[in-house]
Amino acid sequence: MRTIDWNDESNSIVIIDQTFLPVEYKVIECNTLSSLCEAIRSLRVRGAPALGAAGGFGVALSAMLSSAGTMDALIRDIDIAAKTIKATRPTAVNLAWGVDRVIDATSDAYDVQGIRDIVLSEAKNIADEDVATNKMIGKHGAKLLKDGDTVMTYCNAGRMACVDWGTALGVVRSAVEAGKMINVMACETRPLNQGSRITTWELMQDNIPVTLITDSMAGHVMRKGMVDKIIVGADRITGDAVFNKIGTYSLSVLAKEHGIPFYVAAPVSTFDFEGWEDTVTIELRDEDELRFCRGAQTAPADVKVYNPAFDATPMENISGIITENGVFHPPFLLEEVLS
Amino acid sequence: MRTIDWNDESNSIVIIDQTFLPVEYKVIECNTLSSLCEAIRSLRVRGAPALGAAGGFGVALSAMLSSAGTMDALIRDIDIAAKTIKATRPTAVNLAWGVDRVIDATSDAYDVQGIRDIVLSEAKNIADEDVATNKMIGKHGAKLLKDGDTVMTYCNAGRMACVDWGTALGVVRSAVEAGKMINVMACETRPLNQGSRITTWELMQDNIPVTLITDSMAGHVMRKGMVDKIIVGADRITGDAVFNKIGTYSLSVLAKEHGIPFYVAAPVSTFDFEGWEDTVTIELRDEDELRFCRGAQTAPADVKVYNPAFDATPMENISGIITENGVFHPPFLLEEVLS
Repeated sequence: MRTIDWNDESNSIVIIDQTFLPVEYKVIECNTLSSLCEAIRSLRVRGAPALGAAGGFGVALSAMLSSAGTMDALIRDIDIAAKTIKATRPTAVNLAWGVDRVIDATSDAYDVQGIRDIVLSEAKNIADEDVATNKMIGKHGAKLLKDGDTVMTYCNAGRMACVDWGTALGVVRSAVEAGKMINVMACETRPLNQGSRITTWELMQDNIPVTLITDSMAGHVMRKGMVDKIIVGADRITGDAVFNKIGTYSLSVLAKEHGIPFYVAAPVSTFDFEGWEDTVTIELRDEDELRFCRGAQTAPADVKVYNPAFDATPMENISGIITENGVFHPPFLLEEVLS
Repeated sequence: MRTIDWNDESNSIVIIDQTFLPVEYKVIECNTLSSLCEAIRSLRVRGAPALGAAGGFGVALSAMLSSAGTMDALIRDIDIAAKTIKATRPTAVNLAWGVDRVIDATSDAYDVQGIRDIVLSEAKNIADEDVATNKMIGKHGAKLLKDGDTVMTYCNAGRMACVDWGTALGVVRSAVEAGKMINVMACETRPLNQGSRITTWELMQDNIPVTLITDSMAGHVMRKGMVDKIIVGADRITGDAVFNKIGTYSLSVLAKEHGIPFYVAAPVSTFDFEGWEDTVTIELRDEDELRFCRGAQTAPADVKVYNPAFDATPMENISGIITENGVFHPPFLLEEVLS
């Protein structure tokens, strides 16, 4: 099933709960706005593309639950719900984007039922488009991979971060679908272990061979010739740098040292055509993420911690950016990406 | 107190039990050979120099516990104990070295009491010499550090890996003792977290400022200018490479990219003057170390794992090797180290 989807029979949102992975595979149904908001806040659903769909489906859910009998009353109920959904993760641009896109679509409606029909169909469009975009990224990127390649990846840029298929892992899936044998080397991705918990799990589900290493082993395996290509996702791409999970930059330097191609796979919506590295503030996360690992204490409770969520990889370390519009090579002229 | 020491009153070995750190500081007393062997096997005491002392004290303990009335009988009891101690960690060269050095000293004894006196005094010599060696390493290395420097380190090359003072962290301690203000950036050191558990703890005990990061943040903090020097320990130094905890090599590449001096601090006994990188087999450790973090599951229970214990850093990535005989710079002529 998709990471997030709509259940037409029960008029509810169904989500693969990622917080239990890999110990337990659990699908939850959100029948109320508050259960959806809790799922977003608790990272039961995560990843920029998946959150876009969550925002859209959230608006649809609020329209279904509203007992409003007039268009004005229904729009008012939807607007209140929209604020509540956006507040769950105020910095997630895709969440707000999904909410707004669905609300914007209501302007075409003529009556109450029309609004309900339109918000649901627009939310489903967001989800379907995400899958279609990832399949295009996969199609373009798969040409870069050779039969027998070992691809290193970082964090989870897979179907569990999207509605389905994935970006970086979508490229791997498309290559496998095209008949190539691909091995994946997954870095565990400290401190939250999205690589060891989620990337390994979703690849094993698809019977794609995957080997888990610690982030600290990356240089060693590259030096030993165990890696052919590296593909990572992206949270934001400015004119001069790719922002992605902390640790991505180190991998790019190690790749350069060993002459290994370093690719970024991301939809065009990830590009920030106005921004530059020095205009982006990197979020510092909770220090306890380094003091405890899934509940187990790994450091003194009062140790000073530095915990940036992302790092910036300068464009000169990147061999290519794989988008739904094709693969872009240096020099990266952002206007080409849209053409 | 020292990491490992002899208690003259109870004729027993006292050890700081590192398996409980940083949650609990616990000192254990080994009154029997089997409790010492369990402590070595369970890594309650670890680190090459500390294990040398453990081997020596273990022989002394066996001599004290033996009820033998003749020299031959006592030597026989000691030899049996020696085999038992060495078998606890067969690849730890320092452990066997400590055992053998103490047994060799018994050739000077004239009677049963003489053997008992000599083995204990030789074991104490090993411990005292380790501290003296580390202080010399510290003295030479401290000259490389400037007031206000931030020193990145990896794993635990501190007093908890030695009898006292430490190698890499001994250099920091000596610089602090000389009146310099030094900040330490400790990498957590996956998969066993010696950096987050032990290095941070021992530095906080000494009020030396320390900041914890994940291994994956190393490149980012170097690029941001947050690191002035890197000092790591070593398990073995061959003519062409330094073997140390997995992850060391990645740091050396990142240091080179950012023009940051990369130092190795280790006693002369670490040098393998006959060996070359390709003659050394890197031990692969238990795959569960990456599937569980101090009991908490972090990956699918059946995921394939690659878990080498060490990596090799080629000499060209190293700015200097700090020993008790001085600091050696490239080209590293091993014969100079002994002179």
